[in-house]
Amino acid sequence: MSKKINVTVWNEYVHELKNEAVKKLYPNGMHNTIKEFLSTNEDLEIRTATLAEENHGLSDEVLENTDVMLWWGHMAHKKVSDEIVEKVHKRVLEGMGLIVLHSGHFSKIFQKLMGTNCSLKWREEAEKERLWNIEPNHPITQGIGEYIELPNAEMYGERFDIPTPDKLIFISWFEGGEVFRSGCVYERGHGKIFYFRPGHETYPIFYNPEIQKVITNATRWAAQSNRFIDNCPNSAPLEKLSDKNIDFGKAGVSQVS
Amino acid sequence: MSKKINVTVWNEYVHELKNEAVKKLYPNGMHNTIKEFLSTNEDLEIRTATLAEENHGLSDEVLENTDVMLWWGHMAHKKVSDEIVEKVHKRVLEGMGLIVLHSGHFSKIFQKLMGTNCSLKWREEAEKERLWNIEPNHPITQGIGEYIELPNAEMYGERFDIPTPDKLIFISWFEGGEVFRSGCVYERGHGKIFYFRPGHETYPIFYNPEIQKVITNATRWAAQSNRFIDNCPNSAPLEKLSDKNIDFGKAGVSQVS
Amino acid sequence: MSKKINVTVWNEYVHELKNEAVKKLYPNGMHNTIKEFLSTNEDLEIRTATLAEENHGLSDEVLENTDVMLWWGHMAHKKVSDEIVEKVHKRVLEGMGLIVLHSGHFSKIFQKLMGTNCSLKWREEAEKERLWNIEPNHPITQGIGEYIELPNAEMYGERFDIPTPDKLIFISWFEGGEVFRSGCVYERGHGKIFYFRPGHETYPIFYNPEIQKVITNATRWAAQSNRFIDNCPNSAPLEKLSDKNIDFGKAGVSQVS
Amino acid sequence: MSKKINVTVWNEYVHELKNEAVKKLYPNGMHNTIKEFLSTNEDLEIRTATLAEENHGLSDEVLENTDVMLWWGHMAHKKVSDEIVEKVHKRVLEGMGLIVLHSGHFSKIFQKLMGTNCSLKWREEAEKERLWNIEPNHPITQGIGEYIELPNAEMYGERFDIPTPDKLIFISWFEGGEVFRSGCVYERGHGKIFYFRPGHETYPIFYNPEIQKVITNATRWAAQSNRFIDNCPNSAPLEKLSDKNIDFGKAGVSQVS
Repeated sequence: MSKKINVTVWNEYVHELKNEAVKKLYPNGMHNTIKEFLSTNEDLEIRTATLAEENHGLSDEVLENTDVMLWWGHMAHKKVSDEIVEKVHKRVLEGMGLIVLHSGHFSKIFQKLMGTNCSLKWREEAEKERLWNIEPNHPITQGIGEYIELPNAEMYGERFDIPTPDKLIFISWFEGGEVFRSGCVYERGHGKIFYFRPGHETYPIFYNPEIQKVITNATRWAAQSNRFIDNCPNSAPLEKLSDKNIDFGKAGVSQVS
Repeated sequence: MSKKINVTVWNEYVHELKNEAVKKLYPNGMHNTIKEFLSTNEDLEIRTATLAEENHGLSDEVLENTDVMLWWGHMAHKKVSDEIVEKVHKRVLEGMGLIVLHSGHFSKIFQKLMGTNCSLKWREEAEKERLWNIEPNHPITQGIGEYIELPNAEMYGERFDIPTPDKLIFISWFEGGEVFRSGCVYERGHGKIFYFRPGHETYPIFYNPEIQKVITNATRWAAQSNRFIDNCPNSAPLEKLSDKNIDFGKAGVSQVS
Repeated sequence: MSKKINVTVWNEYVHELKNEAVKKLYPNGMHNTIKEFLSTNEDLEIRTATLAEENHGLSDEVLENTDVMLWWGHMAHKKVSDEIVEKVHKRVLEGMGLIVLHSGHFSKIFQKLMGTNCSLKWREEAEKERLWNIEPNHPITQGIGEYIELPNAEMYGERFDIPTPDKLIFISWFEGGEVFRSGCVYERGHGKIFYFRPGHETYPIFYNPEIQKVITNATRWAAQSNRFIDNCPNSAPLEKLSDKNIDFGKAGVSQVS
Repeated sequence: MSKKINVTVWNEYVHELKNEAVKKLYPNGMHNTIKEFLSTNEDLEIRTATLAEENHGLSDEVLENTDVMLWWGHMAHKKVSDEIVEKVHKRVLEGMGLIVLHSGHFSKIFQKLMGTNCSLKWREEAEKERLWNIEPNHPITQGIGEYIELPNAEMYGERFDIPTPDKLIFISWFEGGEVFRSGCVYERGHGKIFYFRPGHETYPIFYNPEIQKVITNATRWAAQSNRFIDNCPNSAPLEKLSDKNIDFGKAGVSQVS
C-alpha cells in the first residue's frame, strides 16, 4: 500500500485541562502524544480531534478521510453527541478501523459496537500490570516479547462484560490479584476493532515504547482500503423459480419502512 | 426446573390488521398463533404484548417477570420507543433470553445487541427454502432431521451483516439461488439470543410443526434462572500491594460520570 | 433426564503408587477421590478406569456405556495406546462428553481433539492461584462466586497453545506473576469438551468443595443423550438437476479409499 | 515484505495418471496447473511435491523452506506416511500457512489439525455451484464479487464435521439442493489455515480465474515471516513468592516424560 493510512486520534481532552497531574504528564493532551509517536512512521498520516471542537472534530469530511480512528474518553462519555456516534459507527461498519483505548471501554461508540455493558472492576493504585502476549504471531504483537510490564497502572479486572472476542491478544496480571482481557480483536460490519486496556491518564503509559509499538501495529492492522456500504436490496432470483400457484398475498413493504 | 418459564411473545401486529392476506392467515395475530403452540407445553407460561399497547405491552413488571422474549417486527421497527428498547436490552444483558424472528433482524433491539446493520438481500416470491441443520446435537435442533423444507418462503440472502455467530445452527438454501445463515446463536451479557429466519407474514410458517418445534426448543434453551446486574465497581486489592512512591495524581473520577 | 448419566473417571494412577506425598494425599488414587464426590449426586453413575487395567479399563463396552469421561494423566501419556485413544476420540465426536483435568492438557486425547501442541509454562512451588469466573451464568459455574482461590497450586502459564476456546470460563492469576486460560469449553464433532486447569497431584485440589462443584457441574453440562455417527455419504439430489452435456469423466472413487 | 513467499504445492497426483478424463484436463498434474498460475506473481516462489517422490517430496529441507503449503489429495490419503504428516503438522503449528483444497478435507493433515472427522455429503453430477462471498473485506476475497459461479462442480453438502471456523468466508449453494461451508479460516498454533472447497479433478476448476484469484489471495494471506517453536518450560517466578510452609511433596516429573 503506497497510499498513506489516514489516522484520526480522538481524545476527550478534559482531564489534561482540569487535573494538574495529568496536565503535567500530557501538557498538549494525550492525543498529541499519540500523534507524535505515530507520526514517526512514514506510512501514517495523523490528525487529531477533540470533544470541544465543532462536531467533536469529526466532520463528515474528516470521517470520510479516516482509515483508522483511535478513541480515548473517560469522564465525558455522555457529552459525545449521539449523532456523531452514529456517524462513527456507520464508518466502522463500512470498513474504518477503530482502536479503543483504556477507559474508552465505556464510550458510546464501543458500547454500540459491542452491544453489551462493557463494565469491569477498577482501582487506581499505581500498581504493577503485566500484559501477557498470547498471540505472538498476530500483526498487533510484532516486536513484543512474552509480556509487557507496566510498573504503574490503573487496575481493570474481570468480569469484563464484552462479547467473546474474535481473538484474545493480551491477558493482564495485576499486582492486586486480578486478571483482565486487555487486548481484544473484533470485526463488526466490514471494520476491524481493537480494544487495548492500558492508557490511564495519570501514568505515563503513552510514553512507553512497547505500548507505542502495540498501538502502531494495531493502526496498520486495522487499516483497510475498501469501503462497503451495506443496504437491504430487493433481489431478483438467479435461478428460474418453479411455477407457483400463489394464493398468498404479498406484504410488499420495504424492510426499512 | 419445576418453576415455569415465563415467556412474552412480542408482535408488532400491524400487517395482520392492514393486509387482507395476512389477516386471513393469522386472524388473531401471529403472536396468538405462537402463544397457542407454545402453550401446549406445561413448562411454559405464555403472555403476549404488541406495539399498540401502553409501553408496547412491556411494562417494567412484565419485563421483570419475563424469562424469555420472542420478537416479531417488520414495518414499524421505527415506532418502537427507544426507552423500551433500552429496557429490553438491559434485561437481555441481565440474563433474559431473546428469540428474534424473521424480519426482526432489522428491529432496534437486535441491531442494538449485534452492533451491526443486520442488512441482507430479500425477495418475496413464495419460493422453496430448505434449512440445513448443521448442529444436530444442539438443544435447539432436537427432534429436527437433516433439514426443514418450507414450500413457500420469502428469500433472505447473504451477505447478512452480523457478527460471527457463537454457533451457526441452520444454513438455508433457496430455490432462487441464494444461501443464508438462518439460525444464529449469540450470548451477550448474561443473556442467550437466537435469531431464526423463517416467519414471513404472508405464508403459514408459524403453523409448520417443525418451525414450532424449533421455536419451542429455543425458548427452553434461552431460559435461565439467574439474573446478573453488572456495574463498574471500584474494587479493593485482594493482594497486598508493594509500597509505591506515588507522585502520580489520581483521576478520581467515576467511570460513568 | 430421569436416566442416570454414566460417568467414567480415567486416571493414569502412577504418581499415587510411586510418590509418597501423593500416596498420602490420595491413598486410593485420585480417580477414587473424584468418584467419591461425584457419587454423592443421585443422577450420576460413576465407574473408574486406569492405565494398568486391560485396555486401560476402556473396553468397547465401557466406552459404549459412557456419557461423560474425565481424564487425568501426567507422566505416562505416552503409555496410553493409540488404539484406545482412537476409540475415545471417536466416542467424543459421536457425542460423549470429555472433561480433561490439569496435566491432561498434554494427553494424546486432548492433543488429538485440539490439533495443537497444548504446551504451556509450569512451576511447582505451591503458590497461590485465583481462578476468575468470567462466565457466571454458564452451567459450569453455577454456585461459584467471582473467583475460586487455591492456597497452593502448581503454576500453569500462558502462552497455552490451544485453539481459541468456544467459551473461556476461567482465567487464573498466579502469585508468581502469570495468567492462564484455566477453563475452556469446546465442541468437537457432536461432543462437548471442558478443559479445567486445577488438579495437581501433590496438593489436595480434588478435596476442595469449589473444585468439586465445578467438576460436578461440568459433568452434567457435558452429558448428552443423543449419539451421531458421521460418515461421508454419496447423496442423491433433492432438486431436479438441469440437463448436463457432460463430457467430463467421473472420478468415481470413494472419498475414503 | 520484499522477501519472496516460498510456496510448496503438494498433490497426490494419482488421478491424473490413472483416469483418462483427468489426464486430459491436467496433463501435467493439478500441481503444475496451480504452480503455473501462482508463478505469474513475482512475490511468490513455487515448488511442487507429490506422493510418489521420496518423502512425498517433503524433505526436511523443503519443509524448512516453505512459508505456505497447498494440499490436494483424494484417493490415496492413507498412503501418506504418518511421519511426514507429523512434520507438516509441526511446521503449521510453528507458523507455516496451509491451504487445503477440495477433497483434502479428508487428508490426514487436515483431520489432525481439526481434531474432527471432516466428513460431508457428496455427489459427482457436474452440477452448478455458487459460492457466496460473505466476507468481502477479507484478504482472501479481494477482487471477488458477491459470488463465484461454477457451472460444473462436485457437490459437497452439510453437515461438514469441522470445528466452528474462526471465520466463514464462503457458503456454497448447489443446484441439487444442498449448502456447504466452502471457505473456512482457522488458526492453529502459530499457523494460518484456509480450507477451500472447489477443486474436483474431473472439472476444469483450477483454470477458473476467480478460483485462481482466491487461491493466490489465500497464499499471500497465509504467509508469515516469524517462526515460533512452542515447548513446555519450567519457569521461574516473576514475582517474589510468599513464604510457604510446604509440607507437600513435589511430583518433579517432566510434563512430557
